[in-house]
Amino acid sequence: MSKLLQIGFLVFPGMTQLDMTGPLQVFSSVPGARVHLIWKRIEPLASDSILTIIPTITLADCPQLDVICVPGGYGTDDLMADDEVLNFLRKQAEHTHYLTAVCTGSLVLAAAGLLHGYRAATHWSAVDALSIFAGVTVSRERVCVDRNRITGGGITAGIDLGLTVVAKLTDRTTAQAVQLRMEYNPAPPFNAGSPETAPVEVVALLNEQTSKARIRRIELAKQAATRAHG
Amino acid sequence: MSKLLQIGFLVFPGMTQLDMTGPLQVFSSVPGARVHLIWKRIEPLASDSILTIIPTITLADCPQLDVICVPGGYGTDDLMADDEVLNFLRKQAEHTHYLTAVCTGSLVLAAAGLLHGYRAATHWSAVDALSIFAGVTVSRERVCVDRNRITGGGITAGIDLGLTVVAKLTDRTTAQAVQLRMEYNPAPPFNAGSPETAPVEVVALLNEQTSKARIRRIELAKQAATRAHG
Repeated sequence: MSKLLQIGFLVFPGMTQLDMTGPLQVFSSVPGARVHLIWKRIEPLASDSILTIIPTITLADCPQLDVICVPGGYGTDDLMADDEVLNFLRKQAEHTHYLTAVCTGSLVLAAAGLLHGYRAATHWSAVDALSIFAGVTVSRERVCVDRNRITGGGITAGIDLGLTVVAKLTDRTTAQAVQLRMEYNPAPPFNAGSPETAPVEVVALLNEQTSKARIRRIELAKQAATRAHG
Repeated sequence: MSKLLQIGFLVFPGMTQLDMTGPLQVFSSVPGARVHLIWKRIEPLASDSILTIIPTITLADCPQLDVICVPGGYGTDDLMADDEVLNFLRKQAEHTHYLTAVCTGSLVLAAAGLLHGYRAATHWSAVDALSIFAGVTVSRERVCVDRNRITGGGITAGIDLGLTVVAKLTDRTTAQAVQLRMEYNPAPPFNAGSPETAPVEVVALLNEQTSKARIRRIELAKQAATRAHG
């Protein structure tokens, strides 16, 4: 592996910003890493929050990456049917060292056919959608490592994923130094971070709030799975 | 408290982006919250990484906030001597519900004289700088709550701080729903997130990498403390 590490995040309209900004903070602290934010055009993109994301390089100009990361968010609904994006990922995947995704970013890798024969994680509310893709074994691990495919659970899992990738790219000490710099010794005030531990009324609330979006995502995943595997 | 919650992050050149984007993801998920990114002018700001931050409102146009959050990063060195920013914070502090900071953002609150008589947390490497301010009791808690001052440790502490603030602003169920949406059940691959738990060689590496910046920060904190308290 070259000394200069080329690390790229796909960015897109409707992305969940922390899916990207979490691992971005991790990768940005790695000595010798060059990080790119990649989209079709260099234009400001609206994320899921008030934060606007400005890409730094286009799909066309992007060099071969050592690590690709696809974040999630409702914008992945459209990406599952976006041939320009899917072809970019397929092309990069031929020579990349690690093909990674956070949250519903896994659906985009699956739509590109890149998770066929692999285990993969996703946001807990997208497990049903990811299961639709033939050949993908859905994992409920927070960070799922299967050969060079490394996928994470929802949103905040991107930080754990980032540290896992850094340890593989460099060494344990470098990854630990990044963790210490970020003072990453988390202490959530509640134990509600997964549907297995959250109070039932909280899970019910989220299921209600997201039900329409989930139905739409499942429909789009079915279409994408048919295109990917016929 | 009004139904519409006005929540504002101070943004600035040289900020550590995750100090802001972590709690931003938390606050953006709260029903009825309106979030602002505040700076002197609406102009793209370089963060500590490749991410450019675009402010959404100026200091002059900012409404009275229910919650103010000051993120950290090396850019706080300059803010400690920036009267326009310090006066903005002092003015907002008169009527805000929660005055918060993440990481070295606490140094800016201290420079504004707003932590006098309070306990406060900061990044582990800035404990010495924060201790310089008269009347501030430095806490090594990850999230330090002292009346309406809520301050966090380094970088990733902003997520825990955000959830703590949301629980106070709304209720426990709302905060838990935000945590579940973010799938925030962290599982760091190493136990190196604080100088108390990281291997000694990792702490030594970070101390070496940051020593010049720390010396500079301490000098600037001394000057700021003199201005704040004479």
